Amino acid sequence: MPNPTAAMLVIGDEILSGRTRDANMHHLAGQLTGRGITLGEVRIVSDDHDAIVGALNALRGGWDHVFTSGGIGPTHDDITADAVGAAFGVPVDVRDDARTLLAEHYAKTGADLNAARLRMARIPQGATLIDNPVSVAPGFTIGNVHVMAGVPSVFEAMVASVLPTLTGGAPLQSTSTRIERGEGDIAGPLADLAREYPDLAIGSYPYQKDGRFGANIVIRGDDRARLDAATARLGTMFG
Amino acid sequence: MPNPTAAMLVIGDEILSGRTRDANMHHLAGQLTGRGITLGEVRIVSDDHDAIVGALNALRGGWDHVFTSGGIGPTHDDITADAVGAAFGVPVDVRDDARTLLAEHYAKTGADLNAARLRMARIPQGATLIDNPVSVAPGFTIGNVHVMAGVPSVFEAMVASVLPTLTGGAPLQSTSTRIERGEGDIAGPLADLAREYPDLAIGSYPYQKDGRFGANIVIRGDDRARLDAATARLGTMFG
Repeated sequence: MPNPTAAMLVIGDEILSGRTRDANMHHLAGQLTGRGITLGEVRIVSDDHDAIVGALNALRGGWDHVFTSGGIGPTHDDITADAVGAAFGVPVDVRDDARTLLAEHYAKTGADLNAARLRMARIPQGATLIDNPVSVAPGFTIGNVHVMAGVPSVFEAMVASVLPTLTGGAPLQSTSTRIERGEGDIAGPLADLAREYPDLAIGSYPYQKDGRFGANIVIRGDDRARLDAATARLGTMFG
Repeated sequence: MPNPTAAMLVIGDEILSGRTRDANMHHLAGQLTGRGITLGEVRIVSDDHDAIVGALNALRGGWDHVFTSGGIGPTHDDITADAVGAAFGVPVDVRDDARTLLAEHYAKTGADLNAARLRMARIPQGATLIDNPVSVAPGFTIGNVHVMAGVPSVFEAMVASVLPTLTGGAPLQSTSTRIERGEGDIAGPLADLAREYPDLAIGSYPYQKDGRFGANIVIRGDDRARLDAATARLGTMFG
């Protein structure tokens, strides 16, 4: 059975403007790979209702799971919950269990559960909450869409809450071999190797360091023996 | 006149697997912002022909410019040129001017212009070449799509070759104000400020540091006086 697939939707003007460098995508990619879930596509859109709704509907139809990050805080530019509601055609309202979580938390910290904070208890109808051990305001799962915060520490905590609830696949195994020769010299033999091992994915990732070109050859697959055989063959090819 | 818009398509299994953290997107985002071109969407897809063709056609219809990174090297997994040709419905073949560039370069370095390297001279019909001062093998522009390499040093050099040829807009100006209070406390006044300055984009980017929550408030616009007025108002709001 092929591994489950996933897509990610990053909602964030701050990444598109170059102000912030994404961290959540890289974190999620590593976590999914470790769990045997294949991340197949990522989209980054701005804080725009129609853009979020359009991307969500495209992604949730094409992949087993969709993970979103960003836009579920208390400020006026946090519009993800409403966009998710619109994508699923369900109303979004303050929900008692989410309100209770926030009320208990702010009673402890002495902060006021004002109208802005109460926005974080607005959950699309039919969703289940995602636990947020860092700052309490929950994420939520609706259908195959998991909606999480953009602050990296909170995003990571929510990923840790969600992943154990998902059915993973066989963790994809990989080897990485660094070859200090230009890709043009290794491309021919590498193509032969790829033909010899059609069950493995063989990728060449060139780099430049100190003015010299080389490539990391990454071989991926789920059969350890085949993986080791192909990697050994690669070693004999390029000594 | 509104600023020109752009999208980016990153072609890269290595980013989706979590092996590599993207650098090109962050670089391009900053460069475009500085030139007054609005980056509106990014997609990351795997080294898959249909995925690249589909994303390219969606993006080139929706944005003024599309920048791609990755998949134009000499190895078997470099399939971007063929996918671009398929998206535009034009043939892809070794082109004399590109072959000459490579032949001269490899004659100097003593490397062989073998079949693999010659793949890098395969250019979709009707494209113009993008100069690559780092490693010579060119990128290309076809229609509104700019096709560039994935190695960051080469990508950055190609961006520097392309950007001066594009018509930019008024560089978007912005201010960033750090407020060391939770978003829930600042959300109400901030929404008032956004209503007072509907011509500016006001974003709140929460962070957590040493267990304390705060937010960077970024105000963007093209009228410096309005920007300064709103930023001063923000300062008086939160002292």
